[in-house]
Amino acid sequence: MTDRPQTSANSMWGGRFAAGPDAIMEAINASIGFDRRLYAQDIRGSRAHAAMLASAGIISDSDAAAIGEGLLTVLSEIEAGDFPFRSDLEDIHMNVEARLKEIIGEPAGRLHTGRSRNDQVATDFRLWVRDQCDAAVEALGALIRAALGQAEAGADWVMPGFTHLQTAQPVTWGHHMMAYVEMFGRDLSRFQDARKRMNESPLGAAALAGTGYPIDREMTARELGFERPMANSLDAVSDRDFALEFLSAASICAVHLSRLAEELVIWSSAQFRFVSMSDKWSTGSSIMPQKRNPDAAELIRAKIGRILGATVALFTVMKGLPLAYSKDMQEDKEQVFDAADSLMLALAAMAGMLSDLTANREKLEAAASAGFSTATDLADWLVRELGLPFRDAHHVTGSLVALAEGRGVDLPDLSLADMQGVHAGITEDVFGVLGVHNSVASRQSYGGTAPVQVRAQIARWKEKLA
Amino acid sequence: MTDRPQTSANSMWGGRFAAGPDAIMEAINASIGFDRRLYAQDIRGSRAHAAMLASAGIISDSDAAAIGEGLLTVLSEIEAGDFPFRSDLEDIHMNVEARLKEIIGEPAGRLHTGRSRNDQVATDFRLWVRDQCDAAVEALGALIRAALGQAEAGADWVMPGFTHLQTAQPVTWGHHMMAYVEMFGRDLSRFQDARKRMNESPLGAAALAGTGYPIDREMTARELGFERPMANSLDAVSDRDFALEFLSAASICAVHLSRLAEELVIWSSAQFRFVSMSDKWSTGSSIMPQKRNPDAAELIRAKIGRILGATVALFTVMKGLPLAYSKDMQEDKEQVFDAADSLMLALAAMAGMLSDLTANREKLEAAASAGFSTATDLADWLVRELGLPFRDAHHVTGSLVALAEGRGVDLPDLSLADMQGVHAGITEDVFGVLGVHNSVASRQSYGGTAPVQVRAQIARWKEKLA
Amino acid sequence: MTDRPQTSANSMWGGRFAAGPDAIMEAINASIGFDRRLYAQDIRGSRAHAAMLASAGIISDSDAAAIGEGLLTVLSEIEAGDFPFRSDLEDIHMNVEARLKEIIGEPAGRLHTGRSRNDQVATDFRLWVRDQCDAAVEALGALIRAALGQAEAGADWVMPGFTHLQTAQPVTWGHHMMAYVEMFGRDLSRFQDARKRMNESPLGAAALAGTGYPIDREMTARELGFERPMANSLDAVSDRDFALEFLSAASICAVHLSRLAEELVIWSSAQFRFVSMSDKWSTGSSIMPQKRNPDAAELIRAKIGRILGATVALFTVMKGLPLAYSKDMQEDKEQVFDAADSLMLALAAMAGMLSDLTANREKLEAAASAGFSTATDLADWLVRELGLPFRDAHHVTGSLVALAEGRGVDLPDLSLADMQGVHAGITEDVFGVLGVHNSVASRQSYGGTAPVQVRAQIARWKEKLA
Amino acid sequence: MTDRPQTSANSMWGGRFAAGPDAIMEAINASIGFDRRLYAQDIRGSRAHAAMLASAGIISDSDAAAIGEGLLTVLSEIEAGDFPFRSDLEDIHMNVEARLKEIIGEPAGRLHTGRSRNDQVATDFRLWVRDQCDAAVEALGALIRAALGQAEAGADWVMPGFTHLQTAQPVTWGHHMMAYVEMFGRDLSRFQDARKRMNESPLGAAALAGTGYPIDREMTARELGFERPMANSLDAVSDRDFALEFLSAASICAVHLSRLAEELVIWSSAQFRFVSMSDKWSTGSSIMPQKRNPDAAELIRAKIGRILGATVALFTVMKGLPLAYSKDMQEDKEQVFDAADSLMLALAAMAGMLSDLTANREKLEAAASAGFSTATDLADWLVRELGLPFRDAHHVTGSLVALAEGRGVDLPDLSLADMQGVHAGITEDVFGVLGVHNSVASRQSYGGTAPVQVRAQIARWKEKLA
Repeated sequence: MTDRPQTSANSMWGGRFAAGPDAIMEAINASIGFDRRLYAQDIRGSRAHAAMLASAGIISDSDAAAIGEGLLTVLSEIEAGDFPFRSDLEDIHMNVEARLKEIIGEPAGRLHTGRSRNDQVATDFRLWVRDQCDAAVEALGALIRAALGQAEAGADWVMPGFTHLQTAQPVTWGHHMMAYVEMFGRDLSRFQDARKRMNESPLGAAALAGTGYPIDREMTARELGFERPMANSLDAVSDRDFALEFLSAASICAVHLSRLAEELVIWSSAQFRFVSMSDKWSTGSSIMPQKRNPDAAELIRAKIGRILGATVALFTVMKGLPLAYSKDMQEDKEQVFDAADSLMLALAAMAGMLSDLTANREKLEAAASAGFSTATDLADWLVRELGLPFRDAHHVTGSLVALAEGRGVDLPDLSLADMQGVHAGITEDVFGVLGVHNSVASRQSYGGTAPVQVRAQIARWKEKLA
Repeated sequence: MTDRPQTSANSMWGGRFAAGPDAIMEAINASIGFDRRLYAQDIRGSRAHAAMLASAGIISDSDAAAIGEGLLTVLSEIEAGDFPFRSDLEDIHMNVEARLKEIIGEPAGRLHTGRSRNDQVATDFRLWVRDQCDAAVEALGALIRAALGQAEAGADWVMPGFTHLQTAQPVTWGHHMMAYVEMFGRDLSRFQDARKRMNESPLGAAALAGTGYPIDREMTARELGFERPMANSLDAVSDRDFALEFLSAASICAVHLSRLAEELVIWSSAQFRFVSMSDKWSTGSSIMPQKRNPDAAELIRAKIGRILGATVALFTVMKGLPLAYSKDMQEDKEQVFDAADSLMLALAAMAGMLSDLTANREKLEAAASAGFSTATDLADWLVRELGLPFRDAHHVTGSLVALAEGRGVDLPDLSLADMQGVHAGITEDVFGVLGVHNSVASRQSYGGTAPVQVRAQIARWKEKLA
Repeated sequence: MTDRPQTSANSMWGGRFAAGPDAIMEAINASIGFDRRLYAQDIRGSRAHAAMLASAGIISDSDAAAIGEGLLTVLSEIEAGDFPFRSDLEDIHMNVEARLKEIIGEPAGRLHTGRSRNDQVATDFRLWVRDQCDAAVEALGALIRAALGQAEAGADWVMPGFTHLQTAQPVTWGHHMMAYVEMFGRDLSRFQDARKRMNESPLGAAALAGTGYPIDREMTARELGFERPMANSLDAVSDRDFALEFLSAASICAVHLSRLAEELVIWSSAQFRFVSMSDKWSTGSSIMPQKRNPDAAELIRAKIGRILGATVALFTVMKGLPLAYSKDMQEDKEQVFDAADSLMLALAAMAGMLSDLTANREKLEAAASAGFSTATDLADWLVRELGLPFRDAHHVTGSLVALAEGRGVDLPDLSLADMQGVHAGITEDVFGVLGVHNSVASRQSYGGTAPVQVRAQIARWKEKLA
Repeated sequence: MTDRPQTSANSMWGGRFAAGPDAIMEAINASIGFDRRLYAQDIRGSRAHAAMLASAGIISDSDAAAIGEGLLTVLSEIEAGDFPFRSDLEDIHMNVEARLKEIIGEPAGRLHTGRSRNDQVATDFRLWVRDQCDAAVEALGALIRAALGQAEAGADWVMPGFTHLQTAQPVTWGHHMMAYVEMFGRDLSRFQDARKRMNESPLGAAALAGTGYPIDREMTARELGFERPMANSLDAVSDRDFALEFLSAASICAVHLSRLAEELVIWSSAQFRFVSMSDKWSTGSSIMPQKRNPDAAELIRAKIGRILGATVALFTVMKGLPLAYSKDMQEDKEQVFDAADSLMLALAAMAGMLSDLTANREKLEAAASAGFSTATDLADWLVRELGLPFRDAHHVTGSLVALAEGRGVDLPDLSLADMQGVHAGITEDVFGVLGVHNSVASRQSYGGTAPVQVRAQIARWKEKLA
């Protein structure tokens, strides 16, 4: 327990809090520090609203024109970096409105007819998140193309298929890459679904109850690219489920990224050397030529932490809030901004890294061949071709593996005579499934690792993307 | 730091761990304690697989028939509670298979042709989660109906519309209920989207690489109600994004439930008394007749914790796992089981509670009328009808509120003369927007709180549900 | 699926990513944008290290002096806002070092002897988090004082004690405030424990293996206020458990804050009116005089979301990272910075708000008296004084409550004759426990709500803080 | 949207919910299904309370004796598995009390004097969590011993020290193991701190306000091993920060476990082969002799998901709950039970696995020697012994590495003449730092990787544990 007097406690807060309650309240209350990112959406929404007010006869055409022009001036000021953001005006909406008044005078006051800050911020934020869905779809498209490029180049390169990070069966590099194409494809469709569900306009919900002005919500919705106005004004200003859905989709995508990133880190180790990172995405050592730190892959791997954290943050904020608007909801934007930035950066970095990645074909094949990785192919052949019960097939296989192991060779290196010594029914055909190339070529079930299957899936995806 | 000798550390583990490593390993490794819930899905999947194997000529028709029959016997044993689950057989798949072998003998061994435990568990779990999506859709439908029932009964009952838990403007009870109908409607569509995306069959992916048997994955997919087989066998056994998406949708729905539950708790307080809970959903005090604890609402409110926790758990488990299967993924099921159970229970309880809820119409209206809640209507009228600038309208309104407050009356209780004393332009028409009933009736913008709008939305939803 | 050409994908990245891989890599890799906050800790650590190197004879005294002076120059440049931070120099350590070299030339290169960026960042960050523990202790002290002030003023003011937000028994305002004093007191001790545990020096761990230079880690530890050097160099650069512990303590504290904030929001509603917020911490309406939005309380309530999110983020980042340093760990700082800022702001705002808060004594007492809140006191009296079994006592109490309810009065308003009509054994003494003041005065068990107990606890805390 | 009639919705709920509201309410409300785990704590608390009531003259000695005996009977019934738990009695407290009444009759009713279910559950749960702190301390002690055993055996075995999973510098196996000893040591102290802070008695707080009975809370606190009674009765029944602190400590410990588990998984891969798991903790393949799946390590790695999920769950539940007790808090126990079980199991499995682990000394050393891992030692030597500036030392080192690489040899394989050809000042002494054994032996700074340092730390820990 401390015995410092109260005064020192105050001085501790130094610059920020020394000024007392007003400084604290401004620090906790003002959002302009972050919601300025919504300026383009805010101005777009206001322009649509003004045009509608004039069309509905609520304000004059000349006022609407002045507002529309004035807002474009504000927009250009902000984009030129000339806009004097003021913290005492609290948020982006009031900053824009105050500046508009300076520029066009009295008509500025009419812009706020039939709406309020509650529906305004809901509209701005929804437009922003909708844009991020589009950006995610775009970025995932680029990433899928990068993975397809890898898959196409190595559709028949053989590598170990792991379970528990132990070699289980040979697969192809193309097949492995296409697994991620499938995952990223589902991620992409999740952002599309989220976008579609959130694409309704809150504008005109006003403070919470709607308005008595004869506004035309269909018109503003259309102008802003929304499919329809939201059907309940309380819901329109109270809910942030569209942000939660975006964050959830981003978290799922970030999990997929973390898995690929983890593989790239492991594959880059001296012990694996399955891949070589380009210099652009890694850092080296001036004196240890073989050391190449997969920095970008590690940073991508970490992003799930940040994005999941943002997701938990907003879920926790929204828990148990009564309708309609509560100030707690001001915490929604920074979480989504940070998660979206992190996701877009991670997607871009992964697409770039995959494009530049060199797979070490020889290392992959050598690793696939070790550890009697086609023993299951042998056992399957015994069942399929000779009709052996599984148990017997496993017994025979175990004996042959022991024989090969004793000689320090792999299964395909045993002679037919060796094989028949263990089970007389084995024929020359058995060599058709032994060896990693035979193994992968044989797995032609739909979605299997056979190059012919992999190439079919690549073709399907290319068509889909075309 | 403790100085107990190692032996006492062992004995501390008591019953469970005294037996040493074997007991610990079994405790951490066996999943039969929870994955037995997948028995119906497991048997359904196996029956489809066996029928396909016969159809493709991989096993004989008689073997397939024996397997199919035997599995039905297993199913009936489990459902009768007669099935001897064995922890040493580790999981549901091996328990079913071992019992099948006891019943039908040798042909049981052929069931595992062209598949593995990896695609089997992926199939079973996907079927189970798909069923939960259906259950959520069903339960949300029932909850929406309960909310519609409340909305219809009180489409024109007036209550305070809150922001910051402060009365802002009057709204209608029906309008407030319909806000939740919209939220639950979006929840419902999220489960539908999730179901559609996950509705692909992993069966036949085998261990990870597909198989050399000429299996027909389309056929099993069709038989199990999947839209198609998954297109990449590595992806099929490696990913659990369908579970993450289900959990995310459940978390969003649970946030909505927590908000309504919070309102019910607050509304049940002696200070609000907006609603009365039925005895079924609350507990009372034998000696304090007015005390009624909203237990069910509080428990529903809490479920977001549990469901979000399960969501975080699975995200964290999946982070950074290399392909294909890792044992970590065994942790997927308990989280989803618990979250699904919690969600279904909360949805059922909320639907029941809402159906039985009595809103206190008089209390609601009295609360809505307090605090000059139609002052904004007055100000809007001054702008709209008299063309006053906002600033002036606010000044006039403030003066009138002060006048009413001084007299201890509400705004509609002032006379026209009183009003004109403050601003000469005010006409008799002003009384058409004062008073809470006039206020709500006036807010006829699309989605607004006017009873006519609320009834239109109720009608739209009833049609949608029909 | 989109069909936009690749080029538009690139152009979409606009300013930031148009430049291609280099821009993406710099964006994901550079930390100077946030780790510049560690400048003071970085310079302090470097000065201690240089002095030690000279003391151990590893560098010359004149080099050490030049380094020490040069670092002070850098410090003053940064604090004057004149320092040219460079993103291409990646982080705060290299920015400081490069500038030092410009200022003092060649000796700057000797500063890095016997250390690396890995132990340097671990030292800087630990010092920063340690400072935040001190700041939290200080801020909690101020908050406790504010709560004590409220408790002292209202040690005998009666208010409802709630369970389930239903009035259960009367308590005192002072008692309620002291509950938070206890919570915040435990929070304070958590930060003290965390500080103590983290107070070990990583400096000299070097890259990960220690160093061959004869450095004196005790000396630098002492100089930096650490209790000792960390005992394992791998651990020193690999672990961030001190940050996780800080975040966990912050999350627990934020839960406490959210509970008090929730109460303040509810108590500020028109229905409760238990408290009045000062204008400093709330916003009003120009035309609705009774409306006062508890903005600060709502924002404090929300901070648990943000802080818990940061906690989850770092836990997720650290999950499964192999030793020693991985680049993922660069994600540690922003989370802790944001959580610490949020916590300090919330603590300051809550302390300020509590200091300015006006409790409405009359409203509190009226609410406490409603609903037969002393019925349990009556039942207890019947058991204690007349020896009635609980069940009988409850039956008698129920009858008396029904009698009072029927007459529209409270229990103390019944006459002794009325009482004796229900149970003949009741004496005049019973009135000593009826009524809310008698009720609270009677609960004198240790820690109970009786004013005498509350005052004793206030006195104990004042002594503790003195 | 579904068009199934309401009835099918009901029938869907099948067994559980078909019975309607009563079944739903019992399902959501009853806690006996999980809080029965508190039976021993509940009975212990009740026995202490009864003895105190008699000692304080509140109940008779004979009643106290009957209660004490009766409770022992209940205890033995539960432990024998004979106790008829009843869901309609809702929780463990009422189950025990009802059975006590059956056994001893009327005196059972007197047990509840001066307490309530609110302080009873707070006491029970606190005792249970306190026990888990003890169990964690014990289990961490065993795990530390296992790690010390590994460290002692391999104090001078050389292995690669990794950053970014790239070989950075050689370290010793003992050093690496001791890093985890430090981490687990801090975990242990966190549970000790948590235990100390939570070790206060809520018993006697009654419903929330304390009691008018002259109870002796010091006496019951002492009897139950608490250091003191809690000082505020509202706080005593309202807060669960002790559970949050336990969960946070468990999460931090689980992160440490996940890191070691990840290393074990990677080290078990065919590419690393740094360690061999014993059969007890892994599963093999009957036909692939080199495949050994590290199941236990993977399951341990996954536990952070589950434990962090439980932590998030309880934080979210507690967010924003007004004082004192709310039913939401019933969700506290299952999360803590599950997290504690998971942690204890993971600790036991890790201790067992480490005890049985075989490090592959040759593989470790070979890996440490690859990649010119002592290049930094060479550069350091050039700075330290020849006084070269860092930049020059790096240039010389780079040239020597290139020379060695060109010849396909390691640095120590170059001749002195080779070396002097690059820099004339190099002497025979340089070989004293080249080669991995020389490298590690040289890093003797406190906490460094030199075997002499490692052994000193082992000795310190053994003394600490003794």
